[in-house]
Amino acid sequence: MSSISNSYKNKSWHLVSRPTREQLAGPQNFTLVEGEMAEPAEGQVLIRHLFLSLDPYMRGRMNDGKSYAAPQNLNETMVGGTVGEIVASRHPKFREGDRVVGMGGWQLYALSDGTGLRKLPANDSIPVEAYIGPAGMPGITAWVGTTQIIKPKAGETYVVSAATGAVGTVAGQLAKMAGARVVGIAGGADKCRYAVETLGLDACVDHRAADFERQLAGATPDGIDGLFENVGGDPFKFALRRINFHSRIALCGLVASGYDGTPTTLEDMRMVLNARCLIQGFIVTDYLPLWPQAISELSGQLASGRIKWRTSVAEGIEGAPEAFFSMLKGGNFGKQLVRLT
Amino acid sequence: MSSISNSYKNKSWHLVSRPTREQLAGPQNFTLVEGEMAEPAEGQVLIRHLFLSLDPYMRGRMNDGKSYAAPQNLNETMVGGTVGEIVASRHPKFREGDRVVGMGGWQLYALSDGTGLRKLPANDSIPVEAYIGPAGMPGITAWVGTTQIIKPKAGETYVVSAATGAVGTVAGQLAKMAGARVVGIAGGADKCRYAVETLGLDACVDHRAADFERQLAGATPDGIDGLFENVGGDPFKFALRRINFHSRIALCGLVASGYDGTPTTLEDMRMVLNARCLIQGFIVTDYLPLWPQAISELSGQLASGRIKWRTSVAEGIEGAPEAFFSMLKGGNFGKQLVRLT
Repeated sequence: MSSISNSYKNKSWHLVSRPTREQLAGPQNFTLVEGEMAEPAEGQVLIRHLFLSLDPYMRGRMNDGKSYAAPQNLNETMVGGTVGEIVASRHPKFREGDRVVGMGGWQLYALSDGTGLRKLPANDSIPVEAYIGPAGMPGITAWVGTTQIIKPKAGETYVVSAATGAVGTVAGQLAKMAGARVVGIAGGADKCRYAVETLGLDACVDHRAADFERQLAGATPDGIDGLFENVGGDPFKFALRRINFHSRIALCGLVASGYDGTPTTLEDMRMVLNARCLIQGFIVTDYLPLWPQAISELSGQLASGRIKWRTSVAEGIEGAPEAFFSMLKGGNFGKQLVRLT
Repeated sequence: MSSISNSYKNKSWHLVSRPTREQLAGPQNFTLVEGEMAEPAEGQVLIRHLFLSLDPYMRGRMNDGKSYAAPQNLNETMVGGTVGEIVASRHPKFREGDRVVGMGGWQLYALSDGTGLRKLPANDSIPVEAYIGPAGMPGITAWVGTTQIIKPKAGETYVVSAATGAVGTVAGQLAKMAGARVVGIAGGADKCRYAVETLGLDACVDHRAADFERQLAGATPDGIDGLFENVGGDPFKFALRRINFHSRIALCGLVASGYDGTPTTLEDMRMVLNARCLIQGFIVTDYLPLWPQAISELSGQLASGRIKWRTSVAEGIEGAPEAFFSMLKGGNFGKQLVRLT
C-alpha cells in the first residue's frame, strides 16, 4: 500500500454521439474530457497508461445495433486495450512500478480493482506495447484463427488480408511456421514489399491494383486452402472464387465493409457447398481459456525474433480519434498505437 | 458359385446430353437403353435391383463443371443408389438371394465385383428400401449434419429445410431426440401437417406462404441456433437473419438454387461475423469412417419406431427421369424411390 503524493490530471475521450446515415462515424462523435483522478480506494490501483491500442472492433462499439459486444455507453470513456504502469496501489497483488495490461480505455489514467488486469513479467526482452499488439489481443486473434480454425498444413496455400495490420502480421507468420505457402493482401506497394521482404510471406497482392483478381490468381496457382479474412469487400469475393475442397475461412473482420456502406455478400453459396468449405466467424474473447497458451507462444516467438512486427504510433491522447479513423481506412502501417507519455 | 440359368433383359437410363442455358435439364437428357445382361465373370455378382434412390446430388452430376463429384459420363448408366437381390454369384462373399445395397445406377440389373456393395442383414425388421433412405445415404447425411456439425443442445432452436424430404425427415427427428426445439420448413400444408403430427416437430412453416418470413420469426421466437440447409433461396436468407450467437449451419444442399437460375447469396457476412456463426458445407462421403456407426444407430431407431418416414414411389424404371425432375421441384412427399420389380 502506498499513499498518493501527487495529483494526476486525466484526459479521457468520451463517446458523445453515435454515427447516423446522415453523419458518418468520425472524430465529432468524441469529446475530450479533463479531470482530476481520484485516489485509489482500498483494493484499487491507479494506472498511468503508456500506450493505447486502436483496433477495428471499436468501430462496432460506436453503434448500438446488435453486435458481438455491448455498445459503448455514451458519455463514458471509450473502450480500449492499454498497457500502463501502476503509480499508486492499495491492492495486495500490485505494487508501484508494476507494468500491467488491461482495458483502460482512451485516457491517460485509470483506476482499477484488478479485474481484467494482468501483470507483465518484470525483466522482459520484448517491449511493453507488444502486449497490446502481437503478444496481446491482436496477436491472440491471429493465433486463434490460424491454429484453432484454419489449421494450415505444410504445402497448403493460406491467404491473409490486411496482411501488415496488427492481426494479419502475426497470422501470416504463424502460417509460414506451419509450412504453408502464404499470400498476403495489403494496400499499396510499400506494405506488400514489407510483407514479403520482412515478414517472409511468399507473395503479397495489392488490393488497389486494377487487375487485383488476376494477380491474386497468379499468386495462388493451386487455389486457396485457408483464408484469414480481416477486410471483406471485393478482395474477399475474389478470394472465395479460388477456394479449394475442404478449405477453411476464419472470418475475423470486415473493416472494408462499412457499417455505413455496402455489405460484404457471399455471391454463391454453392461455392461453399461444392468445396465443403468451413466458414467460422469468431472473436478472440470466445477463446479465453487458450489465451495463456497463446501469449506464452507469441511472446516467445517475439523474443526470439521469429515473429516480426512494426507499429504506427500517434503521439499523445489528443490524436486518438484521428488516428483511429485513419486506421479504419488503412492509413496505419503495422499495429496502430497511441503513445500516452 | 452358381450358374446362370436365365437370361436377364436390362433397361438402363443413359445420360446422353448435358443441360445448357438454352435447354434446361430435363428428361430429354436421358435415353433408355435395352440389352441383355452378361453372365457374371469369376469374382462378380449379378444383382436384380428392387429399388432405385433418386437424390438431388444427381442434378450436379449432369453438369461437367467443378463440383464435389466427378461429372456423370455421357452414354453410360446414370449414377444412383440401389438396393437389390443377388440373382447369380461367382463371388465368394455373396450368395443368391442375398440383399445388397450399392451404387447400381438407373437400371434393372447390375454386375459388380463387390466393390462398394454391402450385404444387408438376413432377418431384418425394417424394409430393404430403408437402406437407401433413412438408414442409407440420405439418413447418414442427416446424421452427419446433425450430430457432427450442428450438435444441437437441449433447449436450442434447430431449423431444417425440406423437412419432409429424405434427409430433412431424419435430421429433424434426430434434433428432437437431442432435445432441441425443431422447426421445419416445407412446401405446402400437407407436408407441414405431417412434419408436426407424424414426425413430431414443434412447428413447420410453409415456404410458399406470402408472409413466410413473419411466420418463421413467429416459430423461432428465440432465434435459430442450428440450421440444416437443404434448399437455399429466400427461406435460407430469412433464416440467416435469425441466427443466434454461436449458431451452426450445416450446408447440405441448395436444391432451390438452380444450376440454371439465381444463385443463393449470403446477403451480409457481418451477420456471420457478429454471431460468430459456423457454416460448414459438407457431403456425406467425406465421413465414410462414421457410416457404420450412423447406419447402426439409424437402423435401430427405425426398427424401434423412433424414426418415422414415408416414401414417394414411382413404379418402373421407365418413369425415373420424370420422377427425378418432379422431386427437384418438391413434387415428392418423403423419400423418392423407383420400384423396379
